[in-house]
Amino acid sequence: MQWTKVLGLGLGAAALLGLGIILGHFAIPKKANSPAPQDLDLEILETVMGQLDANRIRENLRELSREPHLASSPRDEDLVQLLLQRWKDPESGLDSAGASTYEVLLSFPSQEQPNVVDIVGPTGGIIHSCHRTEENVTGEQGGPDVVQPYAAYAPSGTPQGLLVYANRGAEEDFKELQTQGIKLEGTIALTRYGGVGRGAKAVNAAKHGVAGVLVYTDPADINDGLSSPDETFPNSWYLPPSGVERGSYYEYFGDPLTPYLPAVPSSFRVDLANVSGFPPIPTQPIGFQDARDLLCNLNGTLAPATWQGALGCHYRLGPGFRPDGDFPADSQVNVSVYNRLELRNSSNVLGIIRGAVEPDRYVLYGNHRDSWVHGAVDPSSGTAVLLELSRVLGTLLKKGTWRPRRSIVFASWGAEEFGLIGSTEFTEEFFNKLQERTVAYINVDISVFANATLRVQGTPPVQTVVFSATKEIRSPGPGDLSIYDNWIRYFNRSSPVYGLVPSLGSLGAGSDYAPFIHFLGISSMDIAYTYDRSKTSARIYPTYHTAFDTFDYVDKFLDPGFSSHQAVARTAGSVILRLSDSFFLPLKVSDYSETLRSFLQAAQQDLGALLEQHSISLGPLVNAVEKFEAEAAALGQRISTLQKGSPDPLQVRMLNDQLMLLERTFLNPRAFPEERYYSHVLWAPRTGSVVTFPGLSNACSRARDTASGSEAWAEVQRQLSIVVTALEGAAATLRPVADL
Amino acid sequence: MQWTKVLGLGLGAAALLGLGIILGHFAIPKKANSPAPQDLDLEILETVMGQLDANRIRENLRELSREPHLASSPRDEDLVQLLLQRWKDPESGLDSAGASTYEVLLSFPSQEQPNVVDIVGPTGGIIHSCHRTEENVTGEQGGPDVVQPYAAYAPSGTPQGLLVYANRGAEEDFKELQTQGIKLEGTIALTRYGGVGRGAKAVNAAKHGVAGVLVYTDPADINDGLSSPDETFPNSWYLPPSGVERGSYYEYFGDPLTPYLPAVPSSFRVDLANVSGFPPIPTQPIGFQDARDLLCNLNGTLAPATWQGALGCHYRLGPGFRPDGDFPADSQVNVSVYNRLELRNSSNVLGIIRGAVEPDRYVLYGNHRDSWVHGAVDPSSGTAVLLELSRVLGTLLKKGTWRPRRSIVFASWGAEEFGLIGSTEFTEEFFNKLQERTVAYINVDISVFANATLRVQGTPPVQTVVFSATKEIRSPGPGDLSIYDNWIRYFNRSSPVYGLVPSLGSLGAGSDYAPFIHFLGISSMDIAYTYDRSKTSARIYPTYHTAFDTFDYVDKFLDPGFSSHQAVARTAGSVILRLSDSFFLPLKVSDYSETLRSFLQAAQQDLGALLEQHSISLGPLVNAVEKFEAEAAALGQRISTLQKGSPDPLQVRMLNDQLMLLERTFLNPRAFPEERYYSHVLWAPRTGSVVTFPGLSNACSRARDTASGSEAWAEVQRQLSIVVTALEGAAATLRPVADL
Repeated sequence: MQWTKVLGLGLGAAALLGLGIILGHFAIPKKANSPAPQDLDLEILETVMGQLDANRIRENLRELSREPHLASSPRDEDLVQLLLQRWKDPESGLDSAGASTYEVLLSFPSQEQPNVVDIVGPTGGIIHSCHRTEENVTGEQGGPDVVQPYAAYAPSGTPQGLLVYANRGAEEDFKELQTQGIKLEGTIALTRYGGVGRGAKAVNAAKHGVAGVLVYTDPADINDGLSSPDETFPNSWYLPPSGVERGSYYEYFGDPLTPYLPAVPSSFRVDLANVSGFPPIPTQPIGFQDARDLLCNLNGTLAPATWQGALGCHYRLGPGFRPDGDFPADSQVNVSVYNRLELRNSSNVLGIIRGAVEPDRYVLYGNHRDSWVHGAVDPSSGTAVLLELSRVLGTLLKKGTWRPRRSIVFASWGAEEFGLIGSTEFTEEFFNKLQERTVAYINVDISVFANATLRVQGTPPVQTVVFSATKEIRSPGPGDLSIYDNWIRYFNRSSPVYGLVPSLGSLGAGSDYAPFIHFLGISSMDIAYTYDRSKTSARIYPTYHTAFDTFDYVDKFLDPGFSSHQAVARTAGSVILRLSDSFFLPLKVSDYSETLRSFLQAAQQDLGALLEQHSISLGPLVNAVEKFEAEAAALGQRISTLQKGSPDPLQVRMLNDQLMLLERTFLNPRAFPEERYYSHVLWAPRTGSVVTFPGLSNACSRARDTASGSEAWAEVQRQLSIVVTALEGAAATLRPVADL
Repeated sequence: MQWTKVLGLGLGAAALLGLGIILGHFAIPKKANSPAPQDLDLEILETVMGQLDANRIRENLRELSREPHLASSPRDEDLVQLLLQRWKDPESGLDSAGASTYEVLLSFPSQEQPNVVDIVGPTGGIIHSCHRTEENVTGEQGGPDVVQPYAAYAPSGTPQGLLVYANRGAEEDFKELQTQGIKLEGTIALTRYGGVGRGAKAVNAAKHGVAGVLVYTDPADINDGLSSPDETFPNSWYLPPSGVERGSYYEYFGDPLTPYLPAVPSSFRVDLANVSGFPPIPTQPIGFQDARDLLCNLNGTLAPATWQGALGCHYRLGPGFRPDGDFPADSQVNVSVYNRLELRNSSNVLGIIRGAVEPDRYVLYGNHRDSWVHGAVDPSSGTAVLLELSRVLGTLLKKGTWRPRRSIVFASWGAEEFGLIGSTEFTEEFFNKLQERTVAYINVDISVFANATLRVQGTPPVQTVVFSATKEIRSPGPGDLSIYDNWIRYFNRSSPVYGLVPSLGSLGAGSDYAPFIHFLGISSMDIAYTYDRSKTSARIYPTYHTAFDTFDYVDKFLDPGFSSHQAVARTAGSVILRLSDSFFLPLKVSDYSETLRSFLQAAQQDLGALLEQHSISLGPLVNAVEKFEAEAAALGQRISTLQKGSPDPLQVRMLNDQLMLLERTFLNPRAFPEERYYSHVLWAPRTGSVVTFPGLSNACSRARDTASGSEAWAEVQRQLSIVVTALEGAAATLRPVADL
């Protein structure tokens, strides 16, 4: 070959190779360098749903509820170890787990000197005593670890006086007794559970000079009227006659001695004399068989119709016993309470799965661990689900199959029964870190109250993720319904945006979500399976807080087969995965618009005229709500547009921060100085009757009967400004971030 | 050519092209797909430094100080328009700009009825009057826009009584007068500026029954003793005899009627009767020529040596005038104050350069706009710098040369002179958004007090960025020093970590940074050029808050050539660019360790024994400080390691969030309920003498003389726990984000 040809071929070859290199480099997009961002993996979700095992939940529950595990008891500490062992398991555990302990003020009955309720005859002798313990019906109601029924934090004391019946112990109940001409000074008031909080009964009673309070559960309220042993547990799910609801009578939540500070040993503790929120007078709960002995022998006027119950007699008001009854007419009731306050160590257990991409974003999922007795339903039905969820996710993690985009934090809180203590101390200790990083808090306490339908309480932004999750899970009941389709049959509302949808309840302070939503402003939810209200009117599952809340109770009556437990596990699991793994956070902030609009309409309809009389305009509130609606809708549009493209992970992170942090904009720590921990201007406790912004509702209710220009009307204006400022701030947070 | 050859060549060519394509695609990394993350560009920084023009700053100042521009005056509003025009300029403006207006409570003297200070003879006739205006020395001290000297927010009233001299009006000064047997009831107290805050003089005076207060500036305190017209402006930088320092006498900051709420028209306003923080008695400032007439004629005991000044006579205490003086001995002084409170519109102007990568991170840079009279130094020297900085950055932006990584927000605050009102209302309106997103706040108010050296006040994390910036900028003085090297000659300290370094001052509440650091917990700094203290002891530049603070004053005496202004512009500019453009935020959180360690040591040395006597241990505080130190150091290590690799932008964002949000962890809105806005547990006002954590210092100082077990000692323990909790929370925020 001629050298020129060789050269020519060589040059040509080089040129072709070069052209190829250029084409290869520039003309073909390189996939490997910009991988698709980690997003929710539906296959993983399917796997998790499939692996959540009803029988394992059942076995968890059996173990968890095997022994009573009152907060800070040895068995409570054993369960701490059980959780740690599970969460550190090399094959199904989490990335790490640990326990942290707080030194908190709890209240217990004396073991040496049990609380007693006696009837004392005219000569001073005891002529009748109420039961000190529940009847040992299944062999689980005896033994030293079953705490005697008591009213936690009720002061000790031995008041004695004539008995009166005070219905539910509400303020209006005592007023009614006064109206009836009954002198309350020095009496013992028998009240029934329900209507007002536990502690409120003693607070109201003491205001009227009552010396001691008894509280019982009426079969009308808990047993659909049934009360005989053969109609109650272990023959049905109803409360046996000797069953007594224990409970905390403390008005606030968190460790009583360390408000706003974590109860670590070194923390400042309020002097006991300065602690507020404890019941002011001795209080003791009793079973309805004892209540029947007292109530059915009362003298005096017949109680109003709404005060009557199902004890099988006409309830009278007292004071004292009727001459023709079982006790001498001038017999008195003695309530001897020997409760003790004790500083005890209570542990939280925390476990984490580290996020692969955004480890500093936490999806927090928790339940308390402590019970009153065996606590099979409360709280172990939730803990059984928690353990099964952590097992399934932990197994995928340890196998290397999956790691979430964001971190998932599992929590087992201590001492919830005494007032959400473990969770509250945790939020006090890690306030800033949690507030900055937590995407949402998911609470599953009692996972199954009954097996009819899902029930979710939560703030509006979580609605969408719960709907998405529940539409994809089969309902355990008959028929081929999704949990969503079953749910909508029991709880629904007509949404102006979506039409008929399941309705979410709002979050009070009934479980550990309270500090997260009210104190930290973290979007929260509480998930459970619950009643068919056409089948029972029980105010709660009947053995609540009694020694009858046992494994067999659940296994036989509440959820045989554990399919409702499984449904809750699947729902919570799907919600967790969607929150931890979705590239775009599935928190729909525009769903707050419906709440705001409904609060606004209630204010306009029910308070508008009154406010106008006092020259207070709702105009700024209208503007603020409209601004919020517009900004939330516009943000939704921007998200939709972005989702169609292939957005940069940093861009999505910024948007997600707007979604995550919206709930924080509703916090104002100076809004309700008298309400401990409550800072959320939309969900603080509402005492006013109008279902609107709580600060406004409460202030109006207080100002209603005062003159214009009063302090109370100034407070109405202040509350209105607080809400307007919060809503304007919320709208500003949703605006494009570089808009001034 | 044979077809086989052709085929061979073709196949060969195709193979070569294919090989090239493969090589090009796989073997050569594609830069375009994973570009280096946007980081600080040193060339851009050089360009900005070079373009910041002293002469343009001078021209800005000439325009800004051309007319008096008291808050909410027409000229103040003109300057709003000037700022908007500059920031909307198509060639040198920002991305967007706008003004927002608040309706705030200001205080002005009556134009119809000027405030007067008269000497009233024994028969009730006025025998001498103080000047009502400053002398029109340069033609700029007259005219209707020069507001009469007054004490803003002092109540109107016409008290009359014998004159006493009360030094600086501190609590101990009035006690000294009492000790000297002087009856203060009904007197008029003459006080000099300095020592305590303006408002405190009247508060202290009123406690002792004083009826009215006069305040003057002693030549000893402001003029290095000089007082004659030929030694003062316009012949030197010193204060002329007629010069009077105006000022706000309001004790708090923010709009007085809307604490914690933005002063939008609809916001709730406190009833005037319930406003606290205004001076309780009529108060009026006067010049030292008038003060000389009063003070040099006083009767009574000779004042203590430390009370003497430079008026050229022996200062006596009074009460009343001496018989051999200019006025009859029983003459009284009448102080007639006719100030009025008025709701006025005051505007903030905001402008933004949108960040290219992280638009939701704000570097916030601001100064107030309002002055007392022409305000050439205060605040226009700062605004002149602000405008030059925005011009240079705006020009690069509009040319397409540069866009910062993060957003830069420029702010011109209204009504600062009345109590940081514009900035405070802004933080109230956008509390959450700012707290979540602001990287740092940079304040340049008075940019040049004098031209000797840089002076920076700030929180520890900003030290490093200020040092980096100032090491690269030439100092305007003689020699070839950097600003840093010049600075270290005037203000320095020995750091256990770095050796000798310039010392940053801490932030009080002297300018608009106050709400950002104290209320929002945003890392903040205040930058200025200032005095050579070996050359003057003036408590501030002499014409401060007078009608002599004019353009010529700056041009001739303070900074001829404007090189100190330029140095401040370059320093602020470099700091802004480093904060907005650096991939890793240049906030060094471990620099807080030195502060904490020094606070801890002071507590141990000066309070340790006292605390031990009351069984209070500093152990938990020691642990918390050590934990902080360890976590901060470990985070520093992680950052160093990451910086050596090529970290993912999301990873760096997460680290930067830890750095940015550290300062927030020191906030506790419940720590100091009596201190409005102050929530930062490290920088709240300290009244106790021990330079340690302010809550601890103050509580100890109050408890010192009470018995163990008192409320005061409980407060010491509470404050200790608050600090420990904050430090533990801070350490938790610095930990690896997936560590529990």
